[in-house]
Amino acid sequence: MQREIENIAAVEENAPSTRELRYVAGADLGGTNLRLALADLSGKILTRWSTSTVGLRGPEAVIQRICSGVRSMLQEVSASCELLRSIAIGVPGVADVENGIVVATSYLMGWRDVPLGALIESELNVPAVVDNDVNMAAIGERWAGSAKDARDFVFLAIGTGIGAGIVLNGNLFRGSSWAAGEIGYMLLPGAAQIPSTSDEPGALESMIGGEGIKAQWKKLRISEEEVSNATEIFDLALDGNPRALTLLHQSATMLTQAIYNISLILNCPLFVLGGTVGLHLALCDAVQRMLGRWNVPGNPQVVRSTLGPDAQLLGSLRFALDSTRTCNRLS
Amino acid sequence: MQREIENIAAVEENAPSTRELRYVAGADLGGTNLRLALADLSGKILTRWSTSTVGLRGPEAVIQRICSGVRSMLQEVSASCELLRSIAIGVPGVADVENGIVVATSYLMGWRDVPLGALIESELNVPAVVDNDVNMAAIGERWAGSAKDARDFVFLAIGTGIGAGIVLNGNLFRGSSWAAGEIGYMLLPGAAQIPSTSDEPGALESMIGGEGIKAQWKKLRISEEEVSNATEIFDLALDGNPRALTLLHQSATMLTQAIYNISLILNCPLFVLGGTVGLHLALCDAVQRMLGRWNVPGNPQVVRSTLGPDAQLLGSLRFALDSTRTCNRLS
Repeated sequence: MQREIENIAAVEENAPSTRELRYVAGADLGGTNLRLALADLSGKILTRWSTSTVGLRGPEAVIQRICSGVRSMLQEVSASCELLRSIAIGVPGVADVENGIVVATSYLMGWRDVPLGALIESELNVPAVVDNDVNMAAIGERWAGSAKDARDFVFLAIGTGIGAGIVLNGNLFRGSSWAAGEIGYMLLPGAAQIPSTSDEPGALESMIGGEGIKAQWKKLRISEEEVSNATEIFDLALDGNPRALTLLHQSATMLTQAIYNISLILNCPLFVLGGTVGLHLALCDAVQRMLGRWNVPGNPQVVRSTLGPDAQLLGSLRFALDSTRTCNRLS
Repeated sequence: MQREIENIAAVEENAPSTRELRYVAGADLGGTNLRLALADLSGKILTRWSTSTVGLRGPEAVIQRICSGVRSMLQEVSASCELLRSIAIGVPGVADVENGIVVATSYLMGWRDVPLGALIESELNVPAVVDNDVNMAAIGERWAGSAKDARDFVFLAIGTGIGAGIVLNGNLFRGSSWAAGEIGYMLLPGAAQIPSTSDEPGALESMIGGEGIKAQWKKLRISEEEVSNATEIFDLALDGNPRALTLLHQSATMLTQAIYNISLILNCPLFVLGGTVGLHLALCDAVQRMLGRWNVPGNPQVVRSTLGPDAQLLGSLRFALDSTRTCNRLS
């Protein structure tokens, strides 16, 4: 028995072929769902796990769900907890990546300064890293999606909220207080002239975020069509519904203006649209046409995310893999 | 005599105390003026030279002026041309820094793809580097001005044109086609809804650039005060002139909106205002007050340039000094 253990240790340290014996976990924590995935060290996803986060109140409950999901996935692949090397968690808010702290969230009952990384680490006994979920999606797109190996690009997540993950010189740019890319508050022609308070949706968000588009639809009033979400409105636009087309045009104009403004500042060659609203073909088509007519420095390309709703989760796996390497280097 | 030369060569290569025996030149090339400075390798300015560029047509004439100015400065300090180590030229347009090419300018009769670096190099026989003049100003402010040693900041040049020099992680961020920071075209509430063509002033520029403010003043019509430039209007505002105060408020609002939008994207802690309009105390005060009332992530500070009109020139000297070091390392 002793000999067997020694053999395994030797193999683990020297032979790359046994990388599969270790694992990383990625988590995409949202206001409605928690989604997890387990991968081997080559990045291959072995299993997934998900649960609802609706009604969860404190961080403790969320942490328990995350840990229970991770243990369940490890059990599914018949692996002991010791074989987990790291976990990365994408959160819907501003995260201090260096210290693993969730600084603020709009969802999750408005967490403030929650040391999520440390709490998960002490529970699972593995290094835990934390980042904003849109940043995670950008990492995912650069790893395996529409921005594969891109040096500079911006991932735009357009769902209920709106945010940008900015990759410059091959690295995420997070800003001096971890809040880079909070473009949902951008001031644009036709929107509010002064910023909304932090409790209200941002100027851009209130126009083209999922809820914003639904609110605009209600304002049109004359329409009797019942819609449950923004993508249904864009579907109606594809069917030729005139009011839906008006709203699609209005949303595409504002999104194009936002992309234009970001381009002026960053001179970035690629924008990847993600999120439930951003993934809609009609919106992307309309933005591409409009941007093509405008005179934008560097003629940036606009494409849809190929990873779709998986971008965040894949990004968190990639981030977990990278943090494993950092830990290995440091140890 | 032979011995004396040998001695000098030995001293030059080994003793730091003889750094003063070598020089760098910086140039600030504008639509109306060319300003030059000569410094020793410690960065101390020894002399300056300037001339008008009004009516100059091709690059050849500009290059001749630059070279003649450099030679005149060297002569003034009784130095031979061989002691010049490098020259850096700030240009009013987009510059391909890697290849020393002026890609495009709004002034200087609209240069396109002019290999200014190579042309100056072959004329003066020293390495010549080229960058956008607002980028040069940012380098200057970081070296010796309001952003001394700042890791992340944005220099905003507000004169006839408007541009930003963006420093991230201690380095200039220039964008994928050298056009980062072209914020004069930013789309904002109250300005144009779609971009202007490249031959027209940008949306922001046409409102708060020097000419833009003068145009707004004329639109007010009811005013009979004659003004020759935008800063005079802001002076009138300081004297309590109600129409000037209206225009100051309008300009400050748009500038604050622009700073707010840049902050959302870059989460940058410091903005330095420069350029003839940007340097005006009344504008900076109004922007500081307005931004203080808004909820801006990271609470960025807004300050005026302490280098004033010298920012570009000092930046070009710093850039020349840095390029000397690069050349030394490479050789």
